[in-house]
Amino acid sequence: MSGKALVTLVEYEMADAEVRAVYDDIMETRKSDWINNFWKVLAHDPALLKRTWESIKQVMAPGALDPLTKELIYIAVSATNGCEYCTYSHTAGARAKGMTEEQFMEVLSVVGMANETNRLANALRPPVDVQFQPHD
Amino acid sequence: MSGKALVTLVEYEMADAEVRAVYDDIMETRKSDWINNFWKVLAHDPALLKRTWESIKQVMAPGALDPLTKELIYIAVSATNGCEYCTYSHTAGARAKGMTEEQFMEVLSVVGMANETNRLANALRPPVDVQFQPHD
Amino acid sequence: MSGKALVTLVEYEMADAEVRAVYDDIMETRKSDWINNFWKVLAHDPALLKRTWESIKQVMAPGALDPLTKELIYIAVSATNGCEYCTYSHTAGARAKGMTEEQFMEVLSVVGMANETNRLANALRPPVDVQFQPHD
Amino acid sequence: MSGKALVTLVEYEMADAEVRAVYDDIMETRKSDWINNFWKVLAHDPALLKRTWESIKQVMAPGALDPLTKELIYIAVSATNGCEYCTYSHTAGARAKGMTEEQFMEVLSVVGMANETNRLANALRPPVDVQFQPHD
Amino acid sequence: MSGKALVTLVEYEMADAEVRAVYDDIMETRKSDWINNFWKVLAHDPALLKRTWESIKQVMAPGALDPLTKELIYIAVSATNGCEYCTYSHTAGARAKGMTEEQFMEVLSVVGMANETNRLANALRPPVDVQFQPHD
Amino acid sequence: MSGKALVTLVEYEMADAEVRAVYDDIMETRKSDWINNFWKVLAHDPALLKRTWESIKQVMAPGALDPLTKELIYIAVSATNGCEYCTYSHTAGARAKGMTEEQFMEVLSVVGMANETNRLANALRPPVDVQFQPHD
Repeated sequence: MSGKALVTLVEYEMADAEVRAVYDDIMETRKSDWINNFWKVLAHDPALLKRTWESIKQVMAPGALDPLTKELIYIAVSATNGCEYCTYSHTAGARAKGMTEEQFMEVLSVVGMANETNRLANALRPPVDVQFQPHD
Repeated sequence: MSGKALVTLVEYEMADAEVRAVYDDIMETRKSDWINNFWKVLAHDPALLKRTWESIKQVMAPGALDPLTKELIYIAVSATNGCEYCTYSHTAGARAKGMTEEQFMEVLSVVGMANETNRLANALRPPVDVQFQPHD
Repeated sequence: MSGKALVTLVEYEMADAEVRAVYDDIMETRKSDWINNFWKVLAHDPALLKRTWESIKQVMAPGALDPLTKELIYIAVSATNGCEYCTYSHTAGARAKGMTEEQFMEVLSVVGMANETNRLANALRPPVDVQFQPHD
Repeated sequence: MSGKALVTLVEYEMADAEVRAVYDDIMETRKSDWINNFWKVLAHDPALLKRTWESIKQVMAPGALDPLTKELIYIAVSATNGCEYCTYSHTAGARAKGMTEEQFMEVLSVVGMANETNRLANALRPPVDVQFQPHD
Repeated sequence: MSGKALVTLVEYEMADAEVRAVYDDIMETRKSDWINNFWKVLAHDPALLKRTWESIKQVMAPGALDPLTKELIYIAVSATNGCEYCTYSHTAGARAKGMTEEQFMEVLSVVGMANETNRLANALRPPVDVQFQPHD
Repeated sequence: MSGKALVTLVEYEMADAEVRAVYDDIMETRKSDWINNFWKVLAHDPALLKRTWESIKQVMAPGALDPLTKELIYIAVSATNGCEYCTYSHTAGARAKGMTEEQFMEVLSVVGMANETNRLANALRPPVDVQFQPHD
């Protein structure tokens, strides 16, 4: 947050056509008029930028789960991994999609318990119960 | 899954009154007639057993988020941490609460992308955009 | 636990002099008459074997902390990382150094809470209090 | 450390009775006259605040392990997970309980080696020795 | 390794055209006549299967880095995360691309040291030296 | 980056002979005239400083892998673990050894995909294919 990025930020003005096409699609899809810094660092590798954006666009679209639930899951993973940038960006994203303060705190309550019980299970190594085995 | 647990499984019959009270509450809350192995290893420390169960019971109850969404978040964290036992138990739990195969695969799609972009952000260290800063 | 190691186990009989010297020092230091599998896989790289053993020997020796406390810390890290082999070997090691069942469960209680609160802090990003800043 | 928290800090003056009761118990238990920021962000969810504090209070109390050893384990887990806030707060906590510089560096030596050997074991997958299997 | 997958394996014979097209491309690209189980579980979500395969195919192709170096990096990440399946599959993949036993052990030596020093840095929090700041 | 280290920086002038000997070797080996902050915090424990430096020196030297490849692996692990200091220092180190921007972005592409597929495998638990089992 306080330091410089490891690579420069590729601003729209200095971007080539391939990068601008992705930037344009990001803004159009999100109905916004700016590009956040995550994409500006990925733009040093246009193939990486394009692939990551297209995957995110596909994965976060409405499907069997609604977009807000997907943002909550993104917050859960980012908190577990300790990614500062992702925590700020996806909390903002979830709020923009309607996440209430109460929902945010409940996500974190589940994240906290899951991280706790994951370690208790990994340390004590109880055998997986036959009832939990998937059926054929 | 294949090895022995690090401590013995405390079965209901050999459990003392304090442990049995927790086991009874687990079965009553879940409307089931068996105790899964996770609780049987925690039972070596009745205070840990009771505290963990009561926290889980409180956290996973319906609130600002429904119980299925909470199970999906649990799966997301367990997959990120690589907890085998928790992956099996919470996938079974989510299925029992109605998770479809399509929803399961979508959760994992989000988990996969989040784990990918978390590392891209942690490696390239883009500054957090001012637009993502929480307002006062 | 159930699969084969990624490299073969280098047994004492087939080991060269450099590896045997490390194996001998392990057994002498631990006053035991066998080598556990961890060292047998490292032995494919004698420099790695020797460096790792000498570091472990130095780090786990009595110092400002007693050897049992060091084993408890090893268990805490291994549980957090989900290392199956290390969980079994260091729990056995701690028990051999006198760890009681009650101590084992207490270590895991702390590990569980730390993993929980680590994520709550990483998600909510409270500023570090000035009172916690180290003094000059 | 440099950014804003994801939620506002709930100061004592603006807190409701439920939150104040927890804050009072924290200060009384710790014999201090201030509340650190971790609790002030959790206070957005009074149930989470109360549950986390009561669990921490129970887990960190003297038991089969002394409070300093528990703080050392907390440092070990927080360092492994890379939690900045927790690293500062629990190092301060351990120092307040008497941790010397020498002990601090030894904890980190063990943490470093455990993180190294955890990966060597996870990569090479040596079978768990039968001697490490818990006895019935 | 010992348990059942969380979903059934989608074998070629039972796969629909969309999945078969990906399977065919995997075998053609790799010049092999079988599909490994990772793809057979992803096949429950054809979009996830296709997206993941196409990303992998693009990322692992020769570029500024040769394919073997990319496999070594894959092993390094998988060992760090403790992914059993990935450890076996990418070690096999690297060996098929010519990785020697000596190279394998050297990768793991670096992985071990990086995991150690990552935690020492995360625990002691030395300021990033100005000399390491990227230039504009 | 913005906070103070958890211990003071041991500058050359205030260091004792044991620490200075390591500092001298670092500068001589690297043909540089300064010591980065990582070593200055480790210097609070001269045995830890010496052991870590000598291990790093041995591990990062040319061997079956060239020094640049080793730096790339270090970046991969540091990005996966989210170590800010290590990300800056090893990116600088790799650039000094000739890493191009294209190579840097490709390393991160592989790191991103590996972190994604590691979680898909850990969540879906496909059995390890017999073809991936190491031969005897």
